[in-house]
Amino acid sequence: MILAGGAGERFWPASRARRPKPFLRVADGRTLLAAALSRARRFAAPGAVWVVCGADHADAIRRATRLPARRILVEPARRNTAMAVAMAAAWIRRSEPDAVLAVLPADHRIPDERAFAAAIRRAARAAAGAGALVTLGIRPTRPDTGYGYLHVGTAAGPAWPGLRRVRRFVEKPDAARAARFLRGGEHLWNAGIFVFSASALLREVEACAPGLHRALAPLRGPGRAAGAAAAGLLARCYRNAPALPIDVAVMERSRAVWTLPVAFRWSDVGTWASLADELGVAPGRTRILDGELLFDECGGNLVWGRRGVALLGVEGVAVVDAGDVLLVTKLERSPDVRRIVAALKARGRRDVL
Amino acid sequence: MILAGGAGERFWPASRARRPKPFLRVADGRTLLAAALSRARRFAAPGAVWVVCGADHADAIRRATRLPARRILVEPARRNTAMAVAMAAAWIRRSEPDAVLAVLPADHRIPDERAFAAAIRRAARAAAGAGALVTLGIRPTRPDTGYGYLHVGTAAGPAWPGLRRVRRFVEKPDAARAARFLRGGEHLWNAGIFVFSASALLREVEACAPGLHRALAPLRGPGRAAGAAAAGLLARCYRNAPALPIDVAVMERSRAVWTLPVAFRWSDVGTWASLADELGVAPGRTRILDGELLFDECGGNLVWGRRGVALLGVEGVAVVDAGDVLLVTKLERSPDVRRIVAALKARGRRDVL
Repeated sequence: MILAGGAGERFWPASRARRPKPFLRVADGRTLLAAALSRARRFAAPGAVWVVCGADHADAIRRATRLPARRILVEPARRNTAMAVAMAAAWIRRSEPDAVLAVLPADHRIPDERAFAAAIRRAARAAAGAGALVTLGIRPTRPDTGYGYLHVGTAAGPAWPGLRRVRRFVEKPDAARAARFLRGGEHLWNAGIFVFSASALLREVEACAPGLHRALAPLRGPGRAAGAAAAGLLARCYRNAPALPIDVAVMERSRAVWTLPVAFRWSDVGTWASLADELGVAPGRTRILDGELLFDECGGNLVWGRRGVALLGVEGVAVVDAGDVLLVTKLERSPDVRRIVAALKARGRRDVL
Repeated sequence: MILAGGAGERFWPASRARRPKPFLRVADGRTLLAAALSRARRFAAPGAVWVVCGADHADAIRRATRLPARRILVEPARRNTAMAVAMAAAWIRRSEPDAVLAVLPADHRIPDERAFAAAIRRAARAAAGAGALVTLGIRPTRPDTGYGYLHVGTAAGPAWPGLRRVRRFVEKPDAARAARFLRGGEHLWNAGIFVFSASALLREVEACAPGLHRALAPLRGPGRAAGAAAAGLLARCYRNAPALPIDVAVMERSRAVWTLPVAFRWSDVGTWASLADELGVAPGRTRILDGELLFDECGGNLVWGRRGVALLGVEGVAVVDAGDVLLVTKLERSPDVRRIVAALKARGRRDVL
């Protein structure tokens, strides 16, 4: 189950209202969405891949993924990840009561697909056998303050090798705390990649998130709906749906959460700076995603050019040319790209959003 | 006589091989060439304006200025300003033996056209009456190290109010010397704007620059040539023409050089940094020449965008979008734009030059 709902505002102007972050071609020549689909196909049977997305991107996703329309669950409104995940679980359970789901955000970058698929398979066995909600925990490689962390608990048991209980979810820490986490070895990055059976998730939703549980009432019991009937059903669900992240609504409250610690390279590609890190931008080393770098002495820049780009005396900068709009930002300031988007929204500039 | 021969490499990528610096639209909505023409028309009779340029720009200049073809002197080769100026003087003298010429570079910025025209008229009276080569001397407003200076001498005499002899031409000084010049009040910026009678210039060419004098032999004596005959004549002149700046070949050696000190705003628009100064770019104050500035907190930037441009965390930068090529440069490094052009030439990249 690929979650393709995020807007990716911090990747403006490459990511736009009509072509959000999953469509960025930053995964070794593929889009993030194509890479997510490729990862899913490593372990999921053909025809077992679902996508959840918003109405404004459904057509683009249908064309890009070539999935049959009924496999694309179109949210009538944006209600954060708890509703997206729980709705999808409830929907799928109606026709497949024993379904085990892996939730893959469409905007992550994971170069080692085989290691990823192996981890998902192992997590799926625990999810199916023990009814656990398994979240992948990435071994930190730096004291990152932009990620949430999982405090790892005891081993889940000899039947589930590698799996651990989760003691606590930790919000994005400050630098000192992140450094302690890295040294201590008991904390993992919370990647937001989950594996669970649909019934286990919905059991925990009922226990931990009553508002969410109520919203899903129209999907209770078996059934198959398509087209307008499906849209009507979803519209009823979303009318009173709470807007919460799945971590906050369910994972942090449930006692059934386990983690599978993994060590493969992973990035949620959160900002131009983190993408630059992923691509190997470093002092003296500029990376170019498109276009041609005509001149650059300083290096340490990320260039997405569409054309020839020359840099003189600038370093640690991202130059992003989206055709109609050009962004030049210091990489260290790139989390604030959101503020540009907010300012443009406030001025009603939908033409450049 | 408008000199439109310069390439303006430091204004790459806005200034290009086929559309050099005089075509930059940076003079209050006009091109530098149009502004030079407008200045010339303040004091020159209709039909008394000439342009000297290279073969590769002749068509564009004809279209832009709408001058008759015979008023556009096309140099068959680039031989620096001494040859351009002396050839033009020799050419014009053939049909107008008493002509008094004002030499205006096509790439300067002088907002006050009336003050400029008044100065040229005053200089022209001295040039016609005393046979002097008059160079305009701009009162410095800052210790600029990018300009040559004139060391002012005694008054030229009561018949020529304001005019002074020139004691010495001073090459671009270092910062300490430039500061002394500014305090001392005896030095003026050498603007490269000259007024002289054609016969006085050619007399000094004969005295000071024998190589140049020899090269002009085919133009000696009266005559009128046009079309292919004119081109053949110029080709013979340029075959052995020396390539020297007029300052070095004639002005620094001649004893007939006077200056008219003037105080109007003047810039030779030498680099993106000096253009930024001219346009009022300052800390916190960004200027946009084209396109739209969508976001900029820091300020102090110069943007030539063609489209929407957003800046985040960058200051003291020029962003120049020429359509096919984009330049981002620290303003303080902008004199080195030449090095980009040199590097691209060395790589045979005429497509982006």
